[in-house]
Amino acid sequence: MRIIIVGAAGKAGKAIQQLMRERGHDIVTVGRTTGDVHCDISDETQLARMWQHVGQIDAVVSAAGDVTYAPITELGSDDFDAAWTQKALAQINLVRTGLNHVSPRGSFTLISGIPSRDPVVSGTAAATVNGAIEAFVRAAAIEIAPRRINVVSPSVFTESLDDFGDFFPGFVPVNLADVARGFQKAIEGAATGEVITLP
Amino acid sequence: MRIIIVGAAGKAGKAIQQLMRERGHDIVTVGRTTGDVHCDISDETQLARMWQHVGQIDAVVSAAGDVTYAPITELGSDDFDAAWTQKALAQINLVRTGLNHVSPRGSFTLISGIPSRDPVVSGTAAATVNGAIEAFVRAAAIEIAPRRINVVSPSVFTESLDDFGDFFPGFVPVNLADVARGFQKAIEGAATGEVITLP
Repeated sequence: MRIIIVGAAGKAGKAIQQLMRERGHDIVTVGRTTGDVHCDISDETQLARMWQHVGQIDAVVSAAGDVTYAPITELGSDDFDAAWTQKALAQINLVRTGLNHVSPRGSFTLISGIPSRDPVVSGTAAATVNGAIEAFVRAAAIEIAPRRINVVSPSVFTESLDDFGDFFPGFVPVNLADVARGFQKAIEGAATGEVITLP
Repeated sequence: MRIIIVGAAGKAGKAIQQLMRERGHDIVTVGRTTGDVHCDISDETQLARMWQHVGQIDAVVSAAGDVTYAPITELGSDDFDAAWTQKALAQINLVRTGLNHVSPRGSFTLISGIPSRDPVVSGTAAATVNGAIEAFVRAAAIEIAPRRINVVSPSVFTESLDDFGDFFPGFVPVNLADVARGFQKAIEGAATGEVITLP
């Protein structure tokens, strides 16, 4: 399969890239400043140019999107709006604009995160936009068939516990290798409209 | 209780208002162009002025927020963004800015809708922002305690079947009187972080 990975230089992106290459797939990497194609998917002009460059594809993977963690009393309207634009709307637009570029039974696999189903203190903005992405995926699935769409919702990464572990007290972390397996399941499997929760 | 109802002139708002008055509560109605206080809650300046006018309150109710229904291929980035701003961010900002205006054990009750859990064709934008609101509510609940927050997620209203029934084939509708009961449960009960699904 020819697979485009947005956010390929991030922790999850690298793990997905490695597993997909081992599986023999042809990979196109996308990043804001690194990779085969440079694109900030939250910018619609750059997104249109990216698709012109990339052409037809079998699977679209997104492992992109940072969100501010802070107590709800310290989060402003701008923080929620930035989280929406950077993580939710950017991925929604990746799907919308990619519909004519994926093969008839091709797939989209997005990324969300655990706070939408298992909230943490300071994770309100993250929870909100992850909830948006997951609901978008469930809804889009019934309209874009036979093309498929799923979302991987990982817990905190084992490899990120030093940086983010304090936000997730007692949460079972997930190895990046297993996160990559979640994406593999979505790409090589046949499910659609699913939230793949990890671990 | 002293209860503020945003979107009080809408179908759900009127039903909630009627039941809450029957229950003996003191009601402050808010609408963009009608009610005791005029406020578009998607405008932060108007929202700040509303709180100055309203003062202290025991329960904040929102029954506001319209979203465009259209096939995913006809929904642009602007449609998703408008749905986010009008329905999700507006309600989030109502909560954020209201935290210092509700009593210590006061409550917020927001509104979402069925497409986030049970998708319909043309309902992708609605599903997305409803999913955002529901995840926000689950997450905010653990940070704002002992203040409470819940969200009512109704199916299509029985009273709206003529206008919207075609979007919800075979869906069991919900009477506005039962929607009002959902809000009553959230306001007079003790739950928090709950998505109250109706029917």
